[in-house]
Amino acid sequence: MTKTMKISEAVVRRLPVYLRFLNELHKKNVQTVSSQDLGHKLDLNPAQIRKDLAYFGEFGKKGIGYDVDYLIEKIRQILKIDKVIPVALVGAGNLGRALCNYNAYLKDNMKIVAVFDAQPNKIGESINNLKVKPMQELCPTIRELSVRIGIITVPAAEAQSVANQFVESGVEAILNFAPIIIKVPNEIRVHHADFTTELQSLAYYLDE
Amino acid sequence: MTKTMKISEAVVRRLPVYLRFLNELHKKNVQTVSSQDLGHKLDLNPAQIRKDLAYFGEFGKKGIGYDVDYLIEKIRQILKIDKVIPVALVGAGNLGRALCNYNAYLKDNMKIVAVFDAQPNKIGESINNLKVKPMQELCPTIRELSVRIGIITVPAAEAQSVANQFVESGVEAILNFAPIIIKVPNEIRVHHADFTTELQSLAYYLDE
Repeated sequence: MTKTMKISEAVVRRLPVYLRFLNELHKKNVQTVSSQDLGHKLDLNPAQIRKDLAYFGEFGKKGIGYDVDYLIEKIRQILKIDKVIPVALVGAGNLGRALCNYNAYLKDNMKIVAVFDAQPNKIGESINNLKVKPMQELCPTIRELSVRIGIITVPAAEAQSVANQFVESGVEAILNFAPIIIKVPNEIRVHHADFTTELQSLAYYLDE
Repeated sequence: MTKTMKISEAVVRRLPVYLRFLNELHKKNVQTVSSQDLGHKLDLNPAQIRKDLAYFGEFGKKGIGYDVDYLIEKIRQILKIDKVIPVALVGAGNLGRALCNYNAYLKDNMKIVAVFDAQPNKIGESINNLKVKPMQELCPTIRELSVRIGIITVPAAEAQSVANQFVESGVEAILNFAPIIIKVPNEIRVHHADFTTELQSLAYYLDE
């Protein structure tokens, strides 16, 4: 069902937001939720939410709403986080450490399982139970742990080289935090998570 | 011209990406650039780029391309970063430090001018020439420095309280890195920059 449809990136980016709130509801033993409740909580138009979720089939029941657990399961399937996705990170600076500390939030089978850095003084440091490894171990470790996603938190000048090593090691997708556009083969998906971009696009919405 | 149009968030988010590359061209004394060159470098469809830039008027000349400096000036105007936009940050942990270190990249008049933290042991610490201040100084400092954008890098449990203090102090927009949805009055723009969301939406693009 989802395979033949092209879902817009905007929708794909909203699904984890829905998922987080649904997980909160699940914890509180809430069994159903309406698109109105979702919309109110997430500051989104309920019609937009219904449209987003309808992409994946008819989950909601009129007058009752959505079954929370079923919706969680469906979104996890759609996002492919219903199975384990090992993640590796290169760059054990402030940002890299901050992201490793997020591991606690990554309940949905996505976990940073290996951290690497090029600087000798960082090697062996412990971040959230992960020992920082040298770059020479990147490729064998990624293959051994079946890492599928790579995160880049190195300075701009080193980002392309790290991306190349990720690609050679068989990583399928990259989340790049370095403030530079990295080039990879077409079959590799790259998201640029760039602080400057976030901040500059926010400025657009300021009043004169 | 730009005032009456509603520009989609997707376009607003691409403009800083164009701007970064144009700034690189400017540094290399390149005077014109085609949508093909932009598209190749940024991994975007040239037609998409032409459409994005056409929103703001006709800047490109057929067969010649876009005037780099003029386009830089225009995008800066559209994003409102042609004037100074002071930014404040709350949460001097790993992520907060990483963002302060980005200050060097924020050439376009957006600068973090104040950093706050609730923990006494962080107060007075120096991050990239900024001294961490206590929360009691948030409101007076924001008013004194005319801060317009607030960044939240505190744990989820404290994010809403920080958002409230930003709003009370007169901040117009918030970039929230805490993994929680914060609620603010309608006139305040909030962007959620959430690592989990980035990672989960990336998983969608993995093969089965």
